[in-house]
Amino acid sequence: MPTRIGKYTIKLETGPSVLGFAAVVGKKESEGPYGEYYDQCHTDTTLGESSWEKAESRLQNEAVHLALNKAGLKSGDIDCIFAGDLLNQCISSTFGLRSLNIPFLGQYGACSTMAQTLAIASLFVESGAAVRTAAVTSSHFCSAERQFRFPLEYGGQRTPTAQWTATAAGSVILGARNAYPAQSVTMQAITFGRIVDYDIKDVTNMGAAMAPAAANTLTDYFNDTGTNPQDYDLILTGDLGLVGSSLLDDMMKREGRDIRPVHNDCGLMIYDREKQDVHAGGSGCGCSAAILCSAILQQMSIGQLHKVLFLGTGALMSPTSSQQGETIPGVAHLVYLQS
Amino acid sequence: MPTRIGKYTIKLETGPSVLGFAAVVGKKESEGPYGEYYDQCHTDTTLGESSWEKAESRLQNEAVHLALNKAGLKSGDIDCIFAGDLLNQCISSTFGLRSLNIPFLGQYGACSTMAQTLAIASLFVESGAAVRTAAVTSSHFCSAERQFRFPLEYGGQRTPTAQWTATAAGSVILGARNAYPAQSVTMQAITFGRIVDYDIKDVTNMGAAMAPAAANTLTDYFNDTGTNPQDYDLILTGDLGLVGSSLLDDMMKREGRDIRPVHNDCGLMIYDREKQDVHAGGSGCGCSAAILCSAILQQMSIGQLHKVLFLGTGALMSPTSSQQGETIPGVAHLVYLQS
Repeated sequence: MPTRIGKYTIKLETGPSVLGFAAVVGKKESEGPYGEYYDQCHTDTTLGESSWEKAESRLQNEAVHLALNKAGLKSGDIDCIFAGDLLNQCISSTFGLRSLNIPFLGQYGACSTMAQTLAIASLFVESGAAVRTAAVTSSHFCSAERQFRFPLEYGGQRTPTAQWTATAAGSVILGARNAYPAQSVTMQAITFGRIVDYDIKDVTNMGAAMAPAAANTLTDYFNDTGTNPQDYDLILTGDLGLVGSSLLDDMMKREGRDIRPVHNDCGLMIYDREKQDVHAGGSGCGCSAAILCSAILQQMSIGQLHKVLFLGTGALMSPTSSQQGETIPGVAHLVYLQS
Repeated sequence: MPTRIGKYTIKLETGPSVLGFAAVVGKKESEGPYGEYYDQCHTDTTLGESSWEKAESRLQNEAVHLALNKAGLKSGDIDCIFAGDLLNQCISSTFGLRSLNIPFLGQYGACSTMAQTLAIASLFVESGAAVRTAAVTSSHFCSAERQFRFPLEYGGQRTPTAQWTATAAGSVILGARNAYPAQSVTMQAITFGRIVDYDIKDVTNMGAAMAPAAANTLTDYFNDTGTNPQDYDLILTGDLGLVGSSLLDDMMKREGRDIRPVHNDCGLMIYDREKQDVHAGGSGCGCSAAILCSAILQQMSIGQLHKVLFLGTGALMSPTSSQQGETIPGVAHLVYLQS
């Protein structure tokens, strides 16, 4: 059963297990440093669909089907699916997953959505509300550019602090640990984040808007558990990019917790920033989903990584809120994975 | 602890309790048949804010504060808040609740969001993942018209099947039953719905798109629990409106379950359709939230109603998906409340 420790953290006593996971990406992501780890790479970013939005839906659908296959399960074996994305009314998720016939719970946490879906899916298994659950998120560079910034045809210039929305989806299938004792990656703890607003208004610098939320949730977790950065093999944020990662490192150091030796960020991992012209790195729900559901879970499965804090970070704005002069509130949710 | 019964239903053994609830509405809603039940009625639908979106955020914020006050609690007493709305990137929720400093989990279920947030908030309390939780949703006629249909200034004509998005928010505060034995309204069971698509494409007839999902979830619940419509005082859908409610009644009757003697719909309750020119009735996340969090929970609290199935229904489309020729998938989530 889940038990609360400290003010913000939930300990999962049974440790829900990863039964399957998969990542599906586009061409640019497949050419990045983790290209070999993805389950499926599309060289045509339309995925053969007639719109970018339909292509993104397909990314989610494929990620769930691949993860189910790897777990030896069918969609009928899943009691609940938790899914979300960046598009208005989360249409990548709803249209991507409607054929699965699984009870569907849409989640919105901007780029923190992979951590949010993974956390709630874990809690459902831990509590017995579900026997097996799935978590999935996606993003697509072209659907995101059109919706949040400019049509691609406009050829707008990007600022140095801007991040590149990943064309990617990742999915995890979870089940009760006692039913799958051979599965080695388990969910151990969760800290849900509070909304933090540092009055950042620059929509081309999301990393700066999200870093304070990441620092907040990470500090909550360390305080609640009495642990420190050196107790973990990896603190994986997603996706702060170059600016936000550096800000987070500074903020944590100022609080007496130097996370730099164990900190990496999905936005810095997914592309080769020297060669791939992505400025401050990657972003989008699919970025952290693809890195977690490929290299990280694979390395944990074979014992190369044991204790990982996965910290999804989201910028809770919309083009409308920014046009109305609003700031960019951030949120970050943490899941502690162990193998 | 939550236990699964049948294929889709979750039984809540401890019965999380309603500690407080509140509804905040606009002028048109306050002039409807349930005007006297709302906690706060605004005659100025801007709520003194500079945009409709900010007005909607304020509706949510006020609903949570009023519900907390009625429960004798402060925001620091709440472990998790589950919130959602219809606006792109759920900005009514994020901006409305950012000042509360409560761990925040954004939910998206279109007009089913009140049932979805209430269900997950209940499960968190039931499992011990949280001691106290909050659920809140909102909608605003003017922000919804601008985003989903036309700018108000355009003065577009409405079709007879169209529903009127309510300017309203509702919030519920939940806690463990054993800690609040005097609280009489408890959550007893949950059925999360699957996405159902009957190929409806008419965005001015959402009721028809959602009715099959409502029938699906209601049938799942009856099958799983071995109960029938006559075992309940009220089956409250939200928001099918006139067309969808009649379709649901027909679909259920064809399956041998006549729900008409106990069925009512929040979209038919919130306005006086004879006098208020709303065509097929009300809709929007805030519609079912406001009806549930006013008249229904008040009547349950004083023993006028005992067994209520609350069935939130959502149309999972966006203007973009419809412009791309997509159909309108529906979803419905059920919560069984008892007093």
